[in-house]
Amino acid sequence: MAQTLLGKEVTAALNERIKADVEKLKVAGVNPTLGIIRVGERGDDISYERGAMKRCDTLGVAVKQYLLPADVTQEQLIATIEEVNKDDSIHGVLMFRPLPKHLDEEAACQALDPEKDVDGITDGSMVGVFTGQKKGFPPCTPQACMEILDHYGIDCTGKKAVVIGRSLVVGKPAAMMLIKKNATVTVCHTKTVDMPAVCREADILIVAAGRAGVVDKPYFAPGQVVIDVGINVNAEGKLCGDVKFEDAEPIVGAITPVPGGVGSVTTSVLVGHVVEAAMRRQGL
Amino acid sequence: MAQTLLGKEVTAALNERIKADVEKLKVAGVNPTLGIIRVGERGDDISYERGAMKRCDTLGVAVKQYLLPADVTQEQLIATIEEVNKDDSIHGVLMFRPLPKHLDEEAACQALDPEKDVDGITDGSMVGVFTGQKKGFPPCTPQACMEILDHYGIDCTGKKAVVIGRSLVVGKPAAMMLIKKNATVTVCHTKTVDMPAVCREADILIVAAGRAGVVDKPYFAPGQVVIDVGINVNAEGKLCGDVKFEDAEPIVGAITPVPGGVGSVTTSVLVGHVVEAAMRRQGL
Repeated sequence: MAQTLLGKEVTAALNERIKADVEKLKVAGVNPTLGIIRVGERGDDISYERGAMKRCDTLGVAVKQYLLPADVTQEQLIATIEEVNKDDSIHGVLMFRPLPKHLDEEAACQALDPEKDVDGITDGSMVGVFTGQKKGFPPCTPQACMEILDHYGIDCTGKKAVVIGRSLVVGKPAAMMLIKKNATVTVCHTKTVDMPAVCREADILIVAAGRAGVVDKPYFAPGQVVIDVGINVNAEGKLCGDVKFEDAEPIVGAITPVPGGVGSVTTSVLVGHVVEAAMRRQGL
Repeated sequence: MAQTLLGKEVTAALNERIKADVEKLKVAGVNPTLGIIRVGERGDDISYERGAMKRCDTLGVAVKQYLLPADVTQEQLIATIEEVNKDDSIHGVLMFRPLPKHLDEEAACQALDPEKDVDGITDGSMVGVFTGQKKGFPPCTPQACMEILDHYGIDCTGKKAVVIGRSLVVGKPAAMMLIKKNATVTVCHTKTVDMPAVCREADILIVAAGRAGVVDKPYFAPGQVVIDVGINVNAEGKLCGDVKFEDAEPIVGAITPVPGGVGSVTTSVLVGHVVEAAMRRQGL
């Protein structure tokens, strides 16, 4: 019977730290503010936005929305990003992706000021993740995985960590963050041979496979910590992870549920980054 | 009895490709040129510089030296870098490091134009390595490891690759490059527990431990490809690698010697990058 690593417990602790920082900022006359740039009306974006705005409200962080039509031109989008860059009242920016296909997403990402890049999409932030330096911010999802490990006191030093997935939003940054935490890190992906055997060796298994329930019984070993990054909708219309929870739960030592795991921490990480961006600018 | 992976064979093939590119550039009226910035008179730097200049000469690449005194100020160094950035006749720049302690090395690295950064020291180049995009250039040493694998037809797809070392000049970029080549990649370092057991699992083992002969018999398994990045001087004053060659050689499938392995390829990779920088600028 595995321990369930609950996102809400991590979030509660994180929120306390964020609130304390917001207090310090308000004393210094700073009102930490998230700018949201959304192009079009995708359901996923709107739902995440709603969650982020609610969390900001709870934590005393203001929000400014920049809502652009789905057929916005590249020039209009870049002009909006530059406006947000210049606006000193905005400390961090969330820009929803993927952008509509007619837009140059890479150029849009690079147009953003790395100091306001609270979701790790600029080159500046990627360098920070790769080198382990404080430059920009890491993407929120792998950071949420680290917050879960930290909160539950799971020391990574000398542990074998296996990451499934090599994307720039989860797999690669998670691997870099685990190396920084002194884990021996293995990155698996679609070309990995006998992935279950590789994963059974893991003390810590971070799953960002991107497909519902593909990580099942043969992947697990007793005592493992399993962090499931996947968010999928199954045939019954329910949210589920990339891990088959009912296979993992009787074997492993600890596991994050979906929903209620990594995803629930991500929003607080985002707001935390906005507050940290404001703190950095104040030199606090 | 392992196959010896000879740097000179890799270099010979690489040089042919470089010469063909230099020909194309000369037809287009471009004289590919390496700028060398050296502060002080360190023996290691001078010896590497001599090798690089000789290789440039052989391959038809010009060299401009910027030799600064060991007590140069940060302002003078930055002014030199800016001069080199602006000089259209220079396509790639090698700046020796470590710089003397009174200088801000990070600021000096970032002052360099990433398009001329043929040794992977700028943020722009690091982003290219991390994302797998063509931005800047990877550091020459891990690139030399990949050239050896490619030249000897060693397909990485689905193979287990283990990298010993997590530095920004070898370990981390080598790991990223192996992930791009579809290997399942594990990064080991000083905090790894039972490193020999991890390494015995490797099909491809890249060793950048930074200490003479520390990788010995218990690390090896039959059929492995071992790439030794180390360059050390042993008690008898002879060059040796991080791998105990006489331990590895009877067990593994293939191995690079030291000297005559990775190190001998690095200089051609550097010159190749200068030529590629010139090709990119010409749109060739």
